[in-house]
Amino acid sequence: MESFQLSEILLNKIADLILAKKNVALKKLVQDIHFADMAEIIDELNEAEGIYLIKLFDSEKTSEILTELDEDVREKILKALSVKEIADEIEELDSDDAADILSELSERRKEEVISEISDDNLADNLKELLSYNEDSAGGLMAKELIKANENWSVSKCLDEIKKQGENVTRVHSVYVVDDNKKLIGRLSLKDLITSSSKSIIKDIYIPKVDSVNVLEKGEDIAKIMSKYDLEAIPVVDDKKHLVGRITIDDIVDFIIDEAEEDYLLAAGIQGDVEADDSIIELTKARLPWLFLGLVGGLGSVFILEGFEEFMTDPNYKTLFFFTPLIAAMAGNVGVQSSAIIVQGLANDTVKGSLLKRLVKELGLSLINGIILSLLTIVFGLAINQPIELSLVISLSMLCVIIVAALIGTSIPVILEKRGIDPAIATGPFITTSNDIFGIFLFFYIAKIFLL
Amino acid sequence: MESFQLSEILLNKIADLILAKKNVALKKLVQDIHFADMAEIIDELNEAEGIYLIKLFDSEKTSEILTELDEDVREKILKALSVKEIADEIEELDSDDAADILSELSERRKEEVISEISDDNLADNLKELLSYNEDSAGGLMAKELIKANENWSVSKCLDEIKKQGENVTRVHSVYVVDDNKKLIGRLSLKDLITSSSKSIIKDIYIPKVDSVNVLEKGEDIAKIMSKYDLEAIPVVDDKKHLVGRITIDDIVDFIIDEAEEDYLLAAGIQGDVEADDSIIELTKARLPWLFLGLVGGLGSVFILEGFEEFMTDPNYKTLFFFTPLIAAMAGNVGVQSSAIIVQGLANDTVKGSLLKRLVKELGLSLINGIILSLLTIVFGLAINQPIELSLVISLSMLCVIIVAALIGTSIPVILEKRGIDPAIATGPFITTSNDIFGIFLFFYIAKIFLL
Repeated sequence: MESFQLSEILLNKIADLILAKKNVALKKLVQDIHFADMAEIIDELNEAEGIYLIKLFDSEKTSEILTELDEDVREKILKALSVKEIADEIEELDSDDAADILSELSERRKEEVISEISDDNLADNLKELLSYNEDSAGGLMAKELIKANENWSVSKCLDEIKKQGENVTRVHSVYVVDDNKKLIGRLSLKDLITSSSKSIIKDIYIPKVDSVNVLEKGEDIAKIMSKYDLEAIPVVDDKKHLVGRITIDDIVDFIIDEAEEDYLLAAGIQGDVEADDSIIELTKARLPWLFLGLVGGLGSVFILEGFEEFMTDPNYKTLFFFTPLIAAMAGNVGVQSSAIIVQGLANDTVKGSLLKRLVKELGLSLINGIILSLLTIVFGLAINQPIELSLVISLSMLCVIIVAALIGTSIPVILEKRGIDPAIATGPFITTSNDIFGIFLFFYIAKIFLL
Repeated sequence: MESFQLSEILLNKIADLILAKKNVALKKLVQDIHFADMAEIIDELNEAEGIYLIKLFDSEKTSEILTELDEDVREKILKALSVKEIADEIEELDSDDAADILSELSERRKEEVISEISDDNLADNLKELLSYNEDSAGGLMAKELIKANENWSVSKCLDEIKKQGENVTRVHSVYVVDDNKKLIGRLSLKDLITSSSKSIIKDIYIPKVDSVNVLEKGEDIAKIMSKYDLEAIPVVDDKKHLVGRITIDDIVDFIIDEAEEDYLLAAGIQGDVEADDSIIELTKARLPWLFLGLVGGLGSVFILEGFEEFMTDPNYKTLFFFTPLIAAMAGNVGVQSSAIIVQGLANDTVKGSLLKRLVKELGLSLINGIILSLLTIVFGLAINQPIELSLVISLSMLCVIIVAALIGTSIPVILEKRGIDPAIATGPFITTSNDIFGIFLFFYIAKIFLL
């Protein structure tokens, strides 16, 4: 497949045709472009051009494009559309995508759009979907699915699929319910095709069916679906009634978004931002963690002041030249230790007690610390530093490395136990606290031995 | 769904039954456990117990468990199995999973196992799959798929599905080929069911079909499948012959693995390790980046020595107390700038030239820098620091922040242009270089104004 590549040439061509209002040529130019690619194009056009272009399509294509747009671009375009127009788009979409778009509107507009929707069943479905947290099973699921009663025959079931299937983009499984609408099993299309048409569903369905509760958290659903290689999972309420289904494509988007957020958070960037967001949004995402770093840095000014006496000693004032090294070591070791624990907590590979973890981390930091300390002694010899100074620097650094590793390991585990996302621990938080702590420890140990 | 939770109680029960060799009770205890959960159990048992347990199952279940085990546990278990036993497991698996397991064996054992496989077609398929890079389409694809000739009727096609379908766990699409075996389109099962049985495939198939070349890189396939919400994608060779298909569950695993590697890399941990790996493996993954930090830290010793003259000046020696602050600011800003660019490059949202990026980053760092500098001046007033010193510190810090942001932005872009993974730039590399550069700049500017 030739992957679509957005080019300046294409963008300019489109902008020119819009300016000249050559709708026929414009439609011809873009008619074969996939809606996901159209969304990329509109993300790059200015607002007026984007609105012009999107109004050119019928609501079927427009609606698909809308779901793929950048959130801020979509917001602008939705503002330019009438309530009636939005309702038309919504009616074309799967219920989960429709609810996602509705959730971005103001309360008043949301209600106006829903009251414009002619299909009462759809309107009720959307109201239901909007009532769930967006990161829960209810917020991720769609109402479209194929449901079969256990008492149907295969041929009746196939007929129903033809009927129900019109609204369902992709059929993964047929979900089997009893007369009380309780989910009791599933059937693959392949099973249906390979069974005699007179068979009764009850006799051929697979009674083992994974399902998630409507309140289940998105990240747990992602774990279940990826662990058991599921392509769709039915969603049930507390009474085990089938209320919707989640497909793997939505979970893929969820996994990618979560991974991006964790990555940025580890770098001290909070919230769902990307490089192309406005300077104000990016500042909001970045300044808080820089502020934390500032507070930590100013804190270490006081600590260093406390060891000012080293400065007046011609032999030992060089200790101050080592502060960046110590801070870097404390920060790097701490971030390594916490990142691997955060990762392990996220995918459930961290087993055993905190104590066992700490013993292992102690061993690990001893190995790393001793190697790095020996190198520092070699460095000291190379620059003709007094040997007792080199020894003290190396010993202090070793202690700093060990303590940093233990702090880096404990904090995520403690946060997780208290129900706080441990991902917040990696990055600036650990770096800053380890910087301060490491510098204090370094000078404190030096003082014990040298003064 | 009650998500499976591995408990100490269950593990102990299993270990006890193994010790007592109570095979019947053991089988009964574990018979309803999903193979992915069985793999988790075996990961936690010791080697002998794991081997005992895995030999208890028939090759159908054993093979599935093998695919889900931790790589190092699997390696040990494979060593304990005979060539014949491995061949039996391999025959039960989908070709992609079978090839993954084979690829972990030594060259000699690999050949021995393949020659044990009775099905020549499977053996050839495995040899083909093993010839591709594991992160390419060829390495990710399976040979199992449903193929229909364009000249078949729907009823012949349904018959063939029943026949071919036995080997295909899940049927997503039927791929349509012409007489030359070229991929020309696809058909969903739903389309087949809803068409008259006498229709000819040629008249009903969907000629639009996405495909990837067998050499395409895994990350590009992940982008295509997630962007276009595909559940499976056919793989073709240079002549457009259909050679395999990739399903979304394999891509989900790929996406999760890549995200984990990037996350750890940003924290200075290289390679595919996790918290439960051995101390040796973890040291190998962590020491190189710590060494880089050591070199950077020792480098800054020289830089600080160059500004020793400040130390003898009672008014200005406090500058040395600010080195951790400056290093932290340079590091944090640099990591933020590079992380957001790395992320943007990975998901193609970074548009426009490097120059445009740098101008934006300049604006962003000016805003952040001015706010942080003003706070530093307030801090200086609070501790009664001479005002000219506060001003110089703030101005230097502002410059350091701007330069760090520009370096953080440029390095990933430059690496990407040279074909190097920009993810390597975030983390220790940027932190270390920005530390050194920031400290130098800070004192250099202070020298200009103060000495």
